Order: sequence, then structure tokens, then C-alpha cells
Amino acid sequence: MNYSRLFIPTLREVPADAVIASHRLMFRAGLLRKLANGLFAYLPLGLRSFRKIEQIVRDEMNAIGALELKPSVVVPAELWKESGRWDSMGESMLRVKNRLNNDFVVSPTAEEVFTTIVRDELSSYRQLPAALYQINTKFRDEIRPRYGVMRGREFTMKDAYSWHTDDESLDDTYQAMGRAYRKIFKRCGLSVIPVKADSGAMGGSGSEEFMVESDVGDNTLILCKSCEYAANVEKASCAPDFTAFTSIEAAKAAAANTPAFEKTDTPNVKTIDELCSFLNMKPQKFIKTLIYRAINVELDLSSAPGCAKLERRKQSQDASQVKGGQAVYPEAFFAVAIRGDLDVNEVKLAAVLKASEVSLASDADVTRLTNAPVGFAGPIGLTGLPLIIEQTVTGMNGAVTGALEKDTHFKNAAYGRDFEAWMIEDVRTVTAGDKCPLCGGELYTKMGNELGHIFKLGYKYTRSMNVTYLDENGKSQMPIMGCYGIGLDRTLASVIEEHHDDAGIIWPVSVAPFHVIIVPIKYDGAVKEAAEKLAAGLNAAGIEVLLDDRNERPGVKFNDADLTGIPYRVVIGDKGLSASTPQIEVKRRGGKESYMIDLDKAASELTEKIKEELKQFI
Amino acid sequence: MNYSRLFIPTLREVPADAVIASHRLMFRAGLLRKLANGLFAYLPLGLRSFRKIEQIVRDEMNAIGALELKPSVVVPAELWKESGRWDSMGESMLRVKNRLNNDFVVSPTAEEVFTTIVRDELSSYRQLPAALYQINTKFRDEIRPRYGVMRGREFTMKDAYSWHTDDESLDDTYQAMGRAYRKIFKRCGLSVIPVKADSGAMGGSGSEEFMVESDVGDNTLILCKSCEYAANVEKASCAPDFTAFTSIEAAKAAAANTPAFEKTDTPNVKTIDELCSFLNMKPQKFIKTLIYRAINVELDLSSAPGCAKLERRKQSQDASQVKGGQAVYPEAFFAVAIRGDLDVNEVKLAAVLKASEVSLASDADVTRLTNAPVGFAGPIGLTGLPLIIEQTVTGMNGAVTGALEKDTHFKNAAYGRDFEAWMIEDVRTVTAGDKCPLCGGELYTKMGNELGHIFKLGYKYTRSMNVTYLDENGKSQMPIMGCYGIGLDRTLASVIEEHHDDAGIIWPVSVAPFHVIIVPIKYDGAVKEAAEKLAAGLNAAGIEVLLDDRNERPGVKFNDADLTGIPYRVVIGDKGLSASTPQIEVKRRGGKESYMIDLDKAASELTEKIKEELKQFI
Repeated sequence: MNYSRLFIPTLREVPADAVIASHRLMFRAGLLRKLANGLFAYLPLGLRSFRKIEQIVRDEMNAIGALELKPSVVVPAELWKESGRWDSMGESMLRVKNRLNNDFVVSPTAEEVFTTIVRDELSSYRQLPAALYQINTKFRDEIRPRYGVMRGREFTMKDAYSWHTDDESLDDTYQAMGRAYRKIFKRCGLSVIPVKADSGAMGGSGSEEFMVESDVGDNTLILCKSCEYAANVEKASCAPDFTAFTSIEAAKAAAANTPAFEKTDTPNVKTIDELCSFLNMKPQKFIKTLIYRAINVELDLSSAPGCAKLERRKQSQDASQVKGGQAVYPEAFFAVAIRGDLDVNEVKLAAVLKASEVSLASDADVTRLTNAPVGFAGPIGLTGLPLIIEQTVTGMNGAVTGALEKDTHFKNAAYGRDFEAWMIEDVRTVTAGDKCPLCGGELYTKMGNELGHIFKLGYKYTRSMNVTYLDENGKSQMPIMGCYGIGLDRTLASVIEEHHDDAGIIWPVSVAPFHVIIVPIKYDGAVKEAAEKLAAGLNAAGIEVLLDDRNERPGVKFNDADLTGIPYRVVIGDKGLSASTPQIEVKRRGGKESYMIDLDKAASELTEKIKEELKQFI
Repeated sequence: MNYSRLFIPTLREVPADAVIASHRLMFRAGLLRKLANGLFAYLPLGLRSFRKIEQIVRDEMNAIGALELKPSVVVPAELWKESGRWDSMGESMLRVKNRLNNDFVVSPTAEEVFTTIVRDELSSYRQLPAALYQINTKFRDEIRPRYGVMRGREFTMKDAYSWHTDDESLDDTYQAMGRAYRKIFKRCGLSVIPVKADSGAMGGSGSEEFMVESDVGDNTLILCKSCEYAANVEKASCAPDFTAFTSIEAAKAAAANTPAFEKTDTPNVKTIDELCSFLNMKPQKFIKTLIYRAINVELDLSSAPGCAKLERRKQSQDASQVKGGQAVYPEAFFAVAIRGDLDVNEVKLAAVLKASEVSLASDADVTRLTNAPVGFAGPIGLTGLPLIIEQTVTGMNGAVTGALEKDTHFKNAAYGRDFEAWMIEDVRTVTAGDKCPLCGGELYTKMGNELGHIFKLGYKYTRSMNVTYLDENGKSQMPIMGCYGIGLDRTLASVIEEHHDDAGIIWPVSVAPFHVIIVPIKYDGAVKEAAEKLAAGLNAAGIEVLLDDRNERPGVKFNDADLTGIPYRVVIGDKGLSASTPQIEVKRRGGKESYMIDLDKAASELTEKIKEELKQFI
């Protein structure tokens, strides 16, 4: 294709709001333009790469037997009301009323749509397993869209959903998806970090995120310097740096030698640092106690301390208390006791409580629930709410903790003897320097962006939307579900993040908009003729060629060739052509050296080279 | 691909709301499911055909040098406010407010988006002509979505836009688009009726619609039995069936022999039929006068009768009076005099007035403007509003017409002598039986659906959105635009409308989801082996095969093969295989006879046959 006929408006300047490389380069190389904050238009060059990524995703989905569907993007609110997500999705879901005042949703995801389609057609176990997907427009009304298509409002997602008769079948498809995802990212030339939700635990995982490193990533990743351990900080665990007592009896026995706990005055001490210096101790000897407010708690609290009067809202369609169709406690409070040098991870805590949201309680709530000012909560004598003991505390004997009284702490507190847990859980935030739960190696952190996610959904949607089939014995059963997403735009941007230099993009051949750019020094006479002949020869061999037919100075053409990142640049000039054997110059984008090859053999040599390179991405 | 692995939920019953064949068959053959009124999901079999149509459209657009872009589907309202269409698009445009209370539009079309992209990049005449397109989701909030995807709310449209320095360049692209559209529909196996807006007039056309015949079509087409004349009734003209006077003087001269007009009592006469029988005359002798109310009139009325006080609203962004950025009259009234046997075509009238809407005036307005009750309007003495004389009236001498007085008509009215026109126009509705404007042949009507439309837009958007470029002399100029659309879903449904029988769909090979369906009588033993081997042989040759591996009775499989409409059905059974030379049965869907071919040669023979057939669609 001729450069002048393609619409490639390259820019010298960097758009003011473009702070990451992919955003800058997608604009500068003429791949993308902005229509509004978080809304973009792909231009021809960008769309060519986008379509290649789309086709790689489609190929790999088809290869594992997933079937492509195409539901509408705008879907009726009824489906979302049925699943309960009409209320729980919050403001990021774009809601529309049509002329008849009916509610619709501009799809942010499609569990409901696919589940309703399957529900209507599913009758027998013979139809399972089933895996369906779409590659379609999605909309999420991000509060702060930025970084170009890395975090846009409208984007294209491949979202797949599967239904199964049992866990084994779900796991088969889940594993196949995981392999397909690895292949997809490899074919795009991307280094992804697969992050399992519970890699620390034994057995299969129920969730795996595919991350790419990014300084502006949404996620903090915890990685091991010695092994392949990788986890989202929201779920990361670490090797114990404490010795827990094997049982509550062992804790009590060990505490026998510890003096009884006693009050100590700690006037005007506000922070743990001040407390440590006041009492001349390390934070590791302190038991920090935090009060949390949790929303929509699914966990059974019927016998939890202080929860006797809590009402569990029954399943209903209209209330915000519905979470996946389950009855939940709209609001509940919890105390969390944790070793003084550690932080509570609210995402881990929310998972433990099966709550939709967890945050620190207000000062008023803390005062009401602990009968003490903020800063003096402690596990001893705390009866008004359930006490969650972070596992680190189960090894603590002779610790300092708040005494539920102004300016007062307890010394010599001992787990088991002086207080017991309602639950013992791992809710600490893992940080750099902690030890790997797999190999004990040192952990470090990276910021990452999620490109894909595979997830065992369980019965959330089949239960709330009442999907059933008849098993081999004619008995009605509910299928179990998985879901699997990839953001295409973000994948494209991440390819550029990983493959660029100061001069521009360096496309992997698999997703490059063109394989070769031919730059005639002057588009005229013998040079023009040679350029056109070479282009025709390459095109005939299936190589995609961009021929820079513009009447521009060579420097401008070279800059644009570097900026647009076409893998092979071929320069044709009078000098090379007038050699005894006419020659042209070839340069691999991103490579250091250019080299001359014979014009006669150029088409076949380049074709061979590119086809060889493409094979690495299959 | 194996039938059992594909998701093809065929139905015996017809959905209650499916009144046309394509709607019935897309549901029954498992191509489509409904999510809500006018919102659908394509299932795998339907999507395969949809993607083939999409690729045909893309191929033909690329072939004429149009460049594909992909803007977001949700776009900022600002663009629509700039063009003035935020106000003029009405309720069919789906408007959304996001969490920040900003206005957005779920794109019904994309003139604004493409124009803004071009505006930002266009600087020189060297960049023109430019033709850009997308194949993307559109939404129109139809009041009465029906007939399945034939009139859905969400649909996929190929919409292209072009920009030019002059009319000749626009006409080149317009003609190329017209040829591409003919090729697209031919490749889909569709018989379309290209309907030019002004085929009756000499010279180039500025609008061409591509129609398919449909009993439930939105459009009435006027066609000639003798020549290729085809027009939308909204724009159709016919050969004169009257003799107009060559000039107003000639009309006056002819009227010299006609007695002066005089009043005649017509008590209790309410209709033209009653009037004709009361006065014993034919309707052709009567001049019917109708009062119309027109909205947003762009025509200059500064010297029109009764319009002196009308205010023309100046260009502004916020008023509904803005039409393409032009100043318009928000409301104006007109009288139209037409021969008594004819009807006024409101679309033709609106075009003449350059109005956005035209409708009969209310009784109160008629009484106010004619000083007479409804039913007695006439051209003689009518001074309060502009009088448009339908051209048929310019041959009338000695006619009957309303006398602007209750129960009274004038006899002996003569055009030119007794009344004159403010404008003389062709605004009659052409009907079956009228004469062809090209050849004089008899016209007839058909109902049709519009699949595509190519249209010379002129300067509407480049003017309202202020798009300019510098010409060869460095002077700022405004480009002229064209736009070109095809509805993909409607095209798919129309293929089924044209190609089906009582048993199901009969796909043209070019858009069939598969080329061959192999039906083993029993999927077992030698039959299974032969079926799999044949499938593999065909697949290797690039033929798309659906292998019915289900454990169903042959009758069920045959019915589903007919219903899903795969062009070639191959039946493999023990009997054929046990012949001295093993044989299989081949039947062309829609053909009458099946025939046996040797199993050994089946793959090559079928491949050759199908490739031959595919060639007809290139």
C-alpha cells in the first residue's frame, strides 16, 4: 500500500496529556486520535495492528473449541436486575433510558447476557461443557480515564464464559484457557506475568491474572527473586515470620510463665512509633487493633459476638443488599488484631468476610464499639463485635496492646490466655522484603496492568439467574461457570510499552501493521521502478508492504519509518542501484546496523527472513 | 467442524412475533436469539454468515481505496451540537449521561465523528480526495422494532464518508461506491434494485438507494414495466398526463373562451366524490387545494405572500431551528393546488420547500388562513399564504375549485386568468398505472427495504463544522462531502428472504456458514470413518464442512440440514459404502435431485464444484 494513500498523520509534538510511551506513540505514529476523554478512534495504521491482535485472540479461542457469538452491546436492564448487579455495579456502568423510558445498559461485561442465552437453550448434560465468547465493544465509565487506550472508557474485550457439570470439567476449560492466554500473549510478543490468586495454597487455582509490568499500573505485584511466585498484593501471602502456637492450649501453656497483663499509662501517646519509644519496644511486640466497617457481608454472623441483632436481608431483586442473589448483612463491624509492624490488607479482609466492601470505621463507630477513644482499641475485653486475629498474633505472648481506655495500654498480653479469636486469618499486606511462601526467597514489588483474567465463577450467575439442566439420571442440576477476559486495546498498548525506543515503536512482526516499509530516496525514475517492483514481489509472497511514495526529504521518511515501527526498512537509492550488482539497504527496526542486499534477491530474502520470524509467533 | 460441538439450537416452532421468512428462519435455524425488543445475539452459525458479509463489504471498500477506521460507538454530544443534529435527530437517537453528567450519543451514524477527525488533520488539497469508513455498531431507538434484524434497534453498519476539492472528484468516488455496492450485493447473491433519486432528470444523480423487494418494506418503489426506471415513491416522477400551457400568456389566451368563473352552491358536499357526483363531473376537472404546515423551512420566503412578518432564525447552535447550520423559518404555511384525482407527496413537497417536515395544517389554521371552513379552500382570491401550483394544474381551464366560502365552489376557474402560482412544482404522488418518465411505459409498485444508500452530502457538515483546506493557491477552501452506508444485518436477512423455501434457508455459497454438511446415517464404524475422512479432505482443500456427528435419526438430521441451508448435503450410509465402488449421495440444497458419486473422488469433485460456484460471486 502506498503511504500517501493511507491516512497516517504522524506528529512531531507529544500530546500534552500523554505520560506513558504507548499513549505518546499511538498518537505520534498516527495510530489513534482522541474523540473525548477516554474515547478514541483508531486510524488505519492502528486498526491494522488491532485487527491482528483480534485475529490472534479469535484463533486461539477457536482452537480450544470456544464458540463466537455476537450479542448486542446495549442490553436490557432486566438481565442485570435478575443477577443483582443492576444495584451492585455502581456508577462505572453506563445506564441509558430509551424513548419508552425503559432501562438499558451499555455492556461493561456480559455474564448476564451469555447466561440468559445458555439458560434458554440448555436442557441436558449432553450439551455441557459449553464455552462461548464474543469480541465486542464494552463501556466502563471510568472516573479518571487516562494513559490513552490503556485506561479508556470504551474498549474492545474478548470475554468468554463456560458452563460445566462439575469442577473437573470447569478446571479442564480453565486450564485450556490459561494455555490459550499464554499463547495469545506470546504471539503478540508480550512478556506477561501470570499471577495466580492462591499460588501459595496447594492444589488448583480459581483465578489467574495476566499482568504486564507498567510504572502506571493499577496493580501492585508481589514477585519472588528466587522462584516464579507472582501474586497481586490484594491476594499475596508470604512465608511466616512468626511462630504460631500449635493450639490454643499450647498458647495458654506458654503464657503460664508470662506475668499477668496489667495496665500501663501512656499519656499523650498517639502513634505506634511514639508508643514504641515511650515503652522502649519494637513494633513487633505491639498488637494493633483496627475496627472495620464491612458492607454486604455474606458470611454467617448468627453466632458472632455482638451480631445477635444483625438482620440478614433475604434474597430480593430491588435491594442493594443482594449480592449474587444471596442474603447478606447490609452492614457489620469487625475488629482486626495484627502485629504492630504490619498493615491489614482490606481486599484480603473483604474476601475473608465475603463482603463487597471493607473500610476503616468512623471515629464515632470506633468509640461506640470499643467504649474508648480512637487509638486505644485492643483485643482484651473486647466483646461488642467479632474479633479477627491476624495469624501473626497467634504467636504473641507478652505483648503490648490498647486497654480500651484513654491513655492506657496493657502490658504482658498473651494470645490464648488473655483473649481468643472469633476467626484467625491471613489478612496482612505483604511487602517487599517479606519471604516467598513457596521458596522462602526475597519478595519484591512491581506495578502491573492486567491484560487478561481467567476466573472460576462458581454458581453465582447460574444460581441467581436460575440455570438448570437434567443430569444423566434426569435430575435437575445447576451448572458451574467460568469466565475469561482479555482487553484488546490494552494488549495493543502494552505491546508498544514493551517494544519501543526513543525514536518510536518497534513492532513484533506478528502484530506490525506492515512487515516492510520501502523508502525510495526519491520516488522517481529507476528508484521508483525498483521500489514498485520490490513491493509487488513482496506482496505476491504475502508480505505486507508500505511503500513511502511521498515527495518528502529522506530524513522525514526515515523518522516516520522509525516512529511507525515497521519491522523492516528497505532504502532504495540511485547509488545502490548503480552498483555493478544493484543493491538496496535493509535495516531491522530496533537493530543497530543496516546492510546491503542484492535487489534481485531482495524479495525472496526478505520474504524468507520475515516468514522465519513470523514462525516464532505461532 | 462437528455439529455437536457447535451451538445450533434449531427450533421446530416459529416464534410468535416472526412474520417474515428471514426472521422465522434466523430463529428456527439457530442463527439468532432475542435479548429484548429489537436487540439480538448472533449465535455461531449466524455469525459465520455475518462475518462473510462483513468481509465482502470490507474487501470492496478496500478495493476502491477507502480506509477503515474504528471510532468509539459512544461519542460526545458536543460533536452533534456542533453540526446542529443534537437538536434535529429527534428521539431515535439514544442519548446518555455519564457519571459526570456529560452528554453522549450511542452513534446512530457518524458524519460528525469522521468530519471532526478529518478536520483536525486536513491542511492541504494534496490530502484530498479522502474516503474513510468503519464497520461498527450503531443504535437507533426505533419506535416499532420488528421483523428481527431487518428493523432492529442495534445493528452493524458500514458507513463511509468522503471529502473532495470539487464536484468531479466527489462524483468519481460516488460512482466508485455505486459500483462497489453493486458488487457487494452481487457477491452476497442479492438482487437489488438501485433507485436513483432523480433518474428522471438529466445528468448525474446525487443519491442512490439499493433496495430489495419485501412485502414488509419501508419504502414504496415505482418501477417501469418496459425500462429500468426505478424510484422511491418519495421522489418518483412520471410522464405528463396533462398538457400544460407553454406560458402564463398562453393560459390567459386559452381562457378567453372560457366563461368567467362563478359561484355554485354545493350544500352538504363533503368529499370530492360527492362533489363530482353533485356537479356530474370527473375529479380531473377539480382543483383540490390543501394547506400545509412546514417546519424549519430553508427556502427564502422574504417576498412570498403572507410571509412578510415571518422571522428567519439566524444560525445558532442551541435552537431546534438550525438545520445544517443554515438560517431557517421555524414554521410556515403553504397552499398547494393539485388536480382532483391526484395526491400531494409530502416528501417531494418538503424537498421543494427545503423543510425538515411537512404535514397538513390543523383545521384551525386552515380556517384562519383561508377565511373559510375546511373543505372550501381554492386558489382564487387566496392571498394569505404562498400558493404552490402542482404542475398538472397549469393545464386546467374551466375547472371547479373551492370558493373560500362555506358550501360554495367556483365553476369555470382557469389557471393564468383567475389565479397565478407563487411556485409551480411537481409534488404529485406517482402511482401504479402512471406512465414512465423515461420511456412512457406503464409504472407499477413494489414494497422495498433499503440495504444501502450512497449520497452526495454537499457542504452540510464541512460548513457547520468548519472544515477547511488550503488549495493550490494557498487559499482556504471548504471540501465537499459524500456518505455511503450499508446495513449488514439487513443485508444478511435479505439474503434469506431471497433464498429460502418451506424447508429452510438456501444459502448462496458465498455467504453460507458452511459449504458442505456431511450427514452420516449412523455415526459409527465404516460410515463414521468415511465421513471423517471426507471432512478432512474437504477441509484441507479449504472447503468449510459441518459434520453432523449427532446421535439423531436421519430424518432429524435431514430436516436440520434443510433448515440451516448448507449448500451441499452429503449423505453417507452403509448401503452406498458397500457398493462395489463405495458411493455417497450428494444433494444441492434447493435442487430437486440427489445423485451418487464415488467416495474416492468425492472430496475433489465437491471441491471443484464449490470453487467453481464461488467464482460466480467474485
